[in-house]
Amino acid sequence: MTTVGILGGGQLARMMALSGAPLGLRFLVMDSVADACAGQFAPMVVGDYTDEAALAEFASQVDVATFDFENVPAASAEWLSSRVPVFPNPRALGLSQDRLAEKTLFRELGIPVPDFADITDRAALDAAVTTLGAPCILKTRRLGYDGKGQFRIKTAGDVDAAWEALGAQASTVGLILEAFVPFERELSVVAVRGRDGEFRSWPLTENWHVDGVLSASLAPARVDDAMAARAIAYAKSLAEAMDYVGVFALELFCRDGELLANEIAPRVHNSGHWTIEGSETSQFQNHLRAVLGLPLGDTRMVGRACMLNWIGEMPDAHPVLREPGGHWHDYGKSARTGRKVGHATLRADSAQELAQSLTRVGEALQRQTQVAPVVHALAI
Amino acid sequence: MTTVGILGGGQLARMMALSGAPLGLRFLVMDSVADACAGQFAPMVVGDYTDEAALAEFASQVDVATFDFENVPAASAEWLSSRVPVFPNPRALGLSQDRLAEKTLFRELGIPVPDFADITDRAALDAAVTTLGAPCILKTRRLGYDGKGQFRIKTAGDVDAAWEALGAQASTVGLILEAFVPFERELSVVAVRGRDGEFRSWPLTENWHVDGVLSASLAPARVDDAMAARAIAYAKSLAEAMDYVGVFALELFCRDGELLANEIAPRVHNSGHWTIEGSETSQFQNHLRAVLGLPLGDTRMVGRACMLNWIGEMPDAHPVLREPGGHWHDYGKSARTGRKVGHATLRADSAQELAQSLTRVGEALQRQTQVAPVVHALAI
Ligand SMILES: Nc1ncnc2c1ncn2[C@@H]1O[C@H](COP(=O)(O)OP(=O)(O)OP(=O)(O)O)[C@@H](O)[C@H]1O
Ligand SMILES: Nc1ncnc2c1ncn2[C@@H]1O[C@H](COP(=O)(O)OP(=O)(O)OP(=O)(O)O)[C@@H](O)[C@H]1O
Repeated sequence: MTTVGILGGGQLARMMALSGAPLGLRFLVMDSVADACAGQFAPMVVGDYTDEAALAEFASQVDVATFDFENVPAASAEWLSSRVPVFPNPRALGLSQDRLAEKTLFRELGIPVPDFADITDRAALDAAVTTLGAPCILKTRRLGYDGKGQFRIKTAGDVDAAWEALGAQASTVGLILEAFVPFERELSVVAVRGRDGEFRSWPLTENWHVDGVLSASLAPARVDDAMAARAIAYAKSLAEAMDYVGVFALELFCRDGELLANEIAPRVHNSGHWTIEGSETSQFQNHLRAVLGLPLGDTRMVGRACMLNWIGEMPDAHPVLREPGGHWHDYGKSARTGRKVGHATLRADSAQELAQSLTRVGEALQRQTQVAPVVHALAI
Repeated sequence: MTTVGILGGGQLARMMALSGAPLGLRFLVMDSVADACAGQFAPMVVGDYTDEAALAEFASQVDVATFDFENVPAASAEWLSSRVPVFPNPRALGLSQDRLAEKTLFRELGIPVPDFADITDRAALDAAVTTLGAPCILKTRRLGYDGKGQFRIKTAGDVDAAWEALGAQASTVGLILEAFVPFERELSVVAVRGRDGEFRSWPLTENWHVDGVLSASLAPARVDDAMAARAIAYAKSLAEAMDYVGVFALELFCRDGELLANEIAPRVHNSGHWTIEGSETSQFQNHLRAVLGLPLGDTRMVGRACMLNWIGEMPDAHPVLREPGGHWHDYGKSARTGRKVGHATLRADSAQELAQSLTRVGEALQRQTQVAPVVHALAI
């Protein structure tokens, strides 16, 4: 009997436990809050990731550990990895926690990135805005998620406000300035690498964000084979460079047929949720297979899939459940503004059927604006 | 937040909880043993189904109740249904617990059945063997499962031995004598009926038993449309006659193009496990949707699927996990002779690919005899 420990007890841990149960696995989740939603289906250790006693209790009960949460302090991951095997390795985790480190690695590997600059103080910001030009985005190097810790500088006149908002963090989590990319679309590569180095990618996913938070994903993305192959090659070279084990996502901007890497998420990813029903093997099960050194599952998909994120509160389930390819995911969380509380996946054999399904759901739920960009994309 | 109570905490309850979690449901399982495998993913009340205190504790915590175990005493189901909604209804449960009652219902509905006779004493057995002729099978009316409580009478000379084996049960669970059907194949209809009467069936499944226990299932079964429609019509008329809500299986023998009903299982069924990966909606999720009055999910399948049962102990997972359409289900049970400890489902787009996949798995696991009948069936 193998017990997999998961640091972080949110929806990613929950879906991982649900998809790993058929492998005969047990799970132990660690989270700082007692009502973390993975706790509804797995035993939990409640404690802060920096609490060594809690970490020790967790470590003593698991055979291998992984993450649902990418901002686990590097020191905690290191400490843990001296006691149990930890995948992905703490170095890979640390790298992808730091926008400057990951962008530097992208460059080293020849993966195009938007121009960026390390911002250590106000003078550096002024200089960088001049070099990169406005518009640009000031971001914290570490601890950002869902668009938090970002300030958009539309013109040079916004620099004061940007510094006011984030300047204090230059000396704590660090800051980075990035050129703004007027992208046509956002893509992600969700991929998995096994302990033996085997690499597999799901078809590319196209993503739409609202207020910095993922709103909808469509797979496969509307890209030609050459571009898909290029994106997947980037993901593969990154995984190899980091000796990455498990599932990760590489987020990319696409502009004028060019791909620019935005960031890497060292875990199963929201843009890969459609793989639960849309692919032969879900990202959750493949992550576990990778972490355990089991053969990786097939990542092919049949037909098309669209995932719609539910933010803040769950809508009525009926319109989705009535769709022939409608699948519902309620994370068992209470409602809260901005919180990811669930998602739906719609599957169909053709683009036309998927568009029709999305249109029906959008109308029934009064969420036409959420489905519109996907319906539009499917019509092209 | 809705809590679904499940009487019985075996693999069916376990898979039900795993597939119901995405609906935002919580589960409470009741079982007489504390280490029932569903307890690894759902809280449990441990107690006998006849223990009113345990049942009351269970009832007080659930919004609706259903079964993983068909032999819950009718009185317990009745008692429970006076406190919470119970699906399927206790009458349907009671009917399908009794081979005589269900066969009588089959006849009333015009569904062909093998000849049978109620056996109340030794004289009745002698008379019935003469009327029905040998070979025939003496079975307990109630509490049989996986071929237990059965005695095959090959010639009239076996009557003494049959009576010795089962005669004492004539006055307890009752006995029934059935004509032996030299069937060419065994089929099952796995179907679901909603609270509103909506009825849906998955494609027919073809089943192979070894020593009375299911060994392999293939979907879709090799039957023509007319026969499939007839089998599904039988299932529908039964569900309506019993006012059945939830998933059930109708087991049929097929001989010379004729269908004979064997029995009805008032629950998700081993021959429907392939629906987890092989169908748009699994039997487990559709059972829950039905029980909760939610819209039923699509029961269509893509390609073909074969389920292999693991009895006694789990084989090595690698050969199945290496197959492109290979899915593993370890129920988290300890090994024990004759125990259903897990299953695998293999999926493929074509009969030929599925046969190849089965052949590879059969060879790697030294289970050629288990896969052989399915491979043979796929070649016809
Ligand atoms: N340089 C950029 N140019 C244009 N848009 C950007 C840029 N950086 C970020 N964005 C927009 O903001 C979104 C969120 O940014 P980013 O992925 O860097 O933040 P995050 O907080 O890590 O988000 P997540 O948790 O969703 O990955 C992006 O998906 C994109 O829509
Ligand atoms: N009348 C019959 N003629 C021929 N074979 C039979 C007959 N009855 C039962 N069998 C064989 O024995 C198997 C098990 O019988 P049955 O389904 O009645 O028992 P069970 O204990 O309820 O099994 P399960 O739990 O698998 O449904 C059948 O699937 C079939 O292979």
